[in-house]
Amino acid sequence: MPTLAALDPSTVPEWFGSAYPEVFRERVRARRKRPLGNALGLTHYGVNLVTLPPGTWSALRHWHTKQDEFVFVVEGELVLVTDAGEQKLRTGMVAGFPAGNADGHHLVNRSAAPAIYLEVGDRVPGDEVHYPDADLFVDANLTMRHKSGEPY
Amino acid sequence: MPTLAALDPSTVPEWFGSAYPEVFRERVRARRKRPLGNALGLTHYGVNLVTLPPGTWSALRHWHTKQDEFVFVVEGELVLVTDAGEQKLRTGMVAGFPAGNADGHHLVNRSAAPAIYLEVGDRVPGDEVHYPDADLFVDANLTMRHKSGEPY
Repeated sequence: MPTLAALDPSTVPEWFGSAYPEVFRERVRARRKRPLGNALGLTHYGVNLVTLPPGTWSALRHWHTKQDEFVFVVEGELVLVTDAGEQKLRTGMVAGFPAGNADGHHLVNRSAAPAIYLEVGDRVPGDEVHYPDADLFVDANLTMRHKSGEPY
Repeated sequence: MPTLAALDPSTVPEWFGSAYPEVFRERVRARRKRPLGNALGLTHYGVNLVTLPPGTWSALRHWHTKQDEFVFVVEGELVLVTDAGEQKLRTGMVAGFPAGNADGHHLVNRSAAPAIYLEVGDRVPGDEVHYPDADLFVDANLTMRHKSGEPY
């Protein structure tokens, strides 16, 4: 259990990096995440405060089979891309991606300033991740595979 | 499934009210919640945008046996009360309350302006809620009881 029930996010170290195979990392490389949920001792879902510099993506366009995802835009402006097209997200707007809804989504910062958002995702065993635009699939054991099934 | 994956919270109708027995409602009566998670089609956890006018409480001081709770202060200033005492939460600060941590908590708006925060809580069956300062207990079937066990 953490000592304090509350904290200032700036005290939580930022995490850079991606679990993607190297060929897919370019557009997310500058993304920074503060794992707030972990810092507060939460285990049922993850909560990250994410900073996307201009030109950066939140992720490859994807959807989860078992995880509900939620996003709140804290600062700046983002573009949400789904099968329906593009939608501009201003500060204070929210987005949600129900588990099993096969509509790949991601956030792109096309503005000239960094954008900051809060992301929440629950931790359900056996979740798979599908990527409509990339030769990538994450199976229920978190193994990264080609769409053919061959592991990276 | 909702038509849009994203929305402006101001388009989600505010909900007033409380499931508390009438004797406990006074300090939460002015609390307003926009159920954003439901509006976005999420089911694994609830996400509400809550407005607390000056003098209003988020809830009676309580803790959950099975639910992880998370709070992000969007606007204004709140006081977090726990067994450890009081902590001031400024805009942008976060708080977390892990399931089963028997430390009653609530947020109080002692400022002169409304405060707005985002609250997240997962939906685990069999959750109980304990209230250290009130003759109240919510059992795993959501029945409100006196600490003696007698229902309200």
